[in-house]
Amino acid sequence: MALRDPFRPSEILLLGPGPSPVDPAVAAAMAAPTLGHLDPEFIALMDRVQQDLRVVLGTANRFTIPISGTGSAGMEAAIVNLVEPGDRVVVGVHGVFGGRMVDLVRRQGGEVVVVEAPFGQPLDQEGMARAILGGATRLVGFVHAETSTGVLQPFDGIVSAAREVGALVLGDCVTSLAGAPVEADARGLDAVYSGTQKCLSVPPGLAPFTLSDAAIDRIRGRSGPSTSWYLDVGLLSAYWKEGGDRVYHHTAPVQMVYGLARGLDLVIDEGLEARFERHRAVAAALYRGLDVLGLRCLVDPAFRTPMLTSVGVPEGVDEAGLRRFLRAEHHIEIGAGLGAFRGRAVRIGLMGHGARLTNVRRLVAALGDGLSRVGHPVDVGAALRAVG
Amino acid sequence: MALRDPFRPSEILLLGPGPSPVDPAVAAAMAAPTLGHLDPEFIALMDRVQQDLRVVLGTANRFTIPISGTGSAGMEAAIVNLVEPGDRVVVGVHGVFGGRMVDLVRRQGGEVVVVEAPFGQPLDQEGMARAILGGATRLVGFVHAETSTGVLQPFDGIVSAAREVGALVLGDCVTSLAGAPVEADARGLDAVYSGTQKCLSVPPGLAPFTLSDAAIDRIRGRSGPSTSWYLDVGLLSAYWKEGGDRVYHHTAPVQMVYGLARGLDLVIDEGLEARFERHRAVAAALYRGLDVLGLRCLVDPAFRTPMLTSVGVPEGVDEAGLRRFLRAEHHIEIGAGLGAFRGRAVRIGLMGHGARLTNVRRLVAALGDGLSRVGHPVDVGAALRAVG
Repeated sequence: MALRDPFRPSEILLLGPGPSPVDPAVAAAMAAPTLGHLDPEFIALMDRVQQDLRVVLGTANRFTIPISGTGSAGMEAAIVNLVEPGDRVVVGVHGVFGGRMVDLVRRQGGEVVVVEAPFGQPLDQEGMARAILGGATRLVGFVHAETSTGVLQPFDGIVSAAREVGALVLGDCVTSLAGAPVEADARGLDAVYSGTQKCLSVPPGLAPFTLSDAAIDRIRGRSGPSTSWYLDVGLLSAYWKEGGDRVYHHTAPVQMVYGLARGLDLVIDEGLEARFERHRAVAAALYRGLDVLGLRCLVDPAFRTPMLTSVGVPEGVDEAGLRRFLRAEHHIEIGAGLGAFRGRAVRIGLMGHGARLTNVRRLVAALGDGLSRVGHPVDVGAALRAVG
Repeated sequence: MALRDPFRPSEILLLGPGPSPVDPAVAAAMAAPTLGHLDPEFIALMDRVQQDLRVVLGTANRFTIPISGTGSAGMEAAIVNLVEPGDRVVVGVHGVFGGRMVDLVRRQGGEVVVVEAPFGQPLDQEGMARAILGGATRLVGFVHAETSTGVLQPFDGIVSAAREVGALVLGDCVTSLAGAPVEADARGLDAVYSGTQKCLSVPPGLAPFTLSDAAIDRIRGRSGPSTSWYLDVGLLSAYWKEGGDRVYHHTAPVQMVYGLARGLDLVIDEGLEARFERHRAVAAALYRGLDVLGLRCLVDPAFRTPMLTSVGVPEGVDEAGLRRFLRAEHHIEIGAGLGAFRGRAVRIGLMGHGARLTNVRRLVAALGDGLSRVGHPVDVGAALRAVG
């Protein structure tokens, strides 16, 4: 009997909104033998991962763990624990992911006050502050780097307003973490979640997550349990208990934890500041190349996040066709525009291991090739020289 | 500057309650290059995984997917979608995992009727039927193979009673799937969840999951949305939509899906019946070896599940010490007893790739060595000959 052939994926350079290219060292770490989830060696690794996550998140929070799900599970973990029925929650919506937060708060019975910004623009911090101060706000949520647009949200004013009314602040740092400064403690975030598949360059499957002591106190004071057992912070903290007797909760995704641990090693080896600077420099090179190709970045430079860039597609060019061409002929993935950008923009991600000049060169050449073939001749050589 | 050393786990033979040993072919599949979660090649793999899950679960259910979390996330996915506030839910508790189901139903506002069995024994089906028929039961939940005890639960009588009152039936098949027959359709299960880290021999991180059309209809008729966004069946079905335009929901754990796909290949290559017979034969060999060592299986042979065996530890032997000895000197992991068995039993798992005679021999020799060193001399040679 013929046995089944294994699936053999193509090698695609991942320059879309994520997942990003996995660092080979991470892939190697994930191939290590599986340990039991209560094995002493695995428990030592859990301790190390918690400590390293604190460094990367910029926090001393005791409750700092990877949630056993993708970034969206991190969002859910924050909200099912922090929101009780009737809670007033202000959510800033400047793209797709803020909208999800609104949905999730409503599912917990929270009363959402939505503050919107036009697609591709940041939230107005004064508008956020007015909404926060306009009632007994318990929680404020916003997205730091909106993956659907490429906007990096300033949030000092949001945090100040929240402090005034005793509201906690939740930041979605899925795309920003390890690519741009998060500094949870210094900048006043009480709850942060992220994902492994963006600037950490680990495959998708875990959500780095942290809660301040104030957030933990809020959860301890809940009038009833969270709707979730899998994401219940009280139960999770008994399993992710450094230096203590760990109480089995669920079976940790062991191989994913290996990958995250190695990804964190690489971030710490490189240094956070050097890593942020690399993301900025590589993004700047992309902007130069796009400019020569006649392609326009849709987000104001003052609010652009370096790891994700929304790029307008010239009138008459089919953006889906352009992406298919890049995928088929250059083995590069870029992302579709979302929301108001659907059909008229693409999204380019230069994240973690993917944020390298070589990749910018390969992408700029491929984009130039794609444009030239649909009647938009461009000077690819000049664009590559502009990249540097 | 010295760079960090990667984590290098020991090679431990995993003969506890899970995770089980990962098949090398699965590990190889997981090392393949990461694709985007909307890449056409990945989407083709998703189709294949859904189809293969149907074969292994024994179902034609359209909604058959891997949930992006461990087995407990599968339990949560079933209950947050199927239970609404005020629903009468009968849960059979014959170990730790039934207790979790009770907790989760209560978190959704369901009214739980608990039917208990003593630890190490199956649920009394007549008692379950009485509870089911005793009110307007909407859902019945039970654990097929209780990982905390090693009991395999018969359930034909449970399903019959549920049918009488129009209740749906939810089976926890985390430990049984691909090691003992589940046959969801033929045996009348409306909802089944499992885990990858037991008899599928894939690392932990995904929960195979299926819902019957009746279960889907129940969810469509809900009066309000599920408390979960991450596990919302309506949203998940738009992403895991075979042959259609897939709507992005969350970023699938790509590498884990590669692993599951390969694990399913291996199950289908071996054949379900041959695989079940292998688990039975290897368990029987274990029982013979344990008998010669003077160790007693705690579950009645009529209700023993082949892939997980609770074994009493002789009076005067420290079970934690015995497990530590096996881990340190023989590089074998076995599990602690739970609940009523805590401190007086160990749990031995022979699951998937781990269910091989070689492993039974290695374990029997190690157990004999451990017993001999604490004043319980045994004839290891005779035990190995009994294994065969």
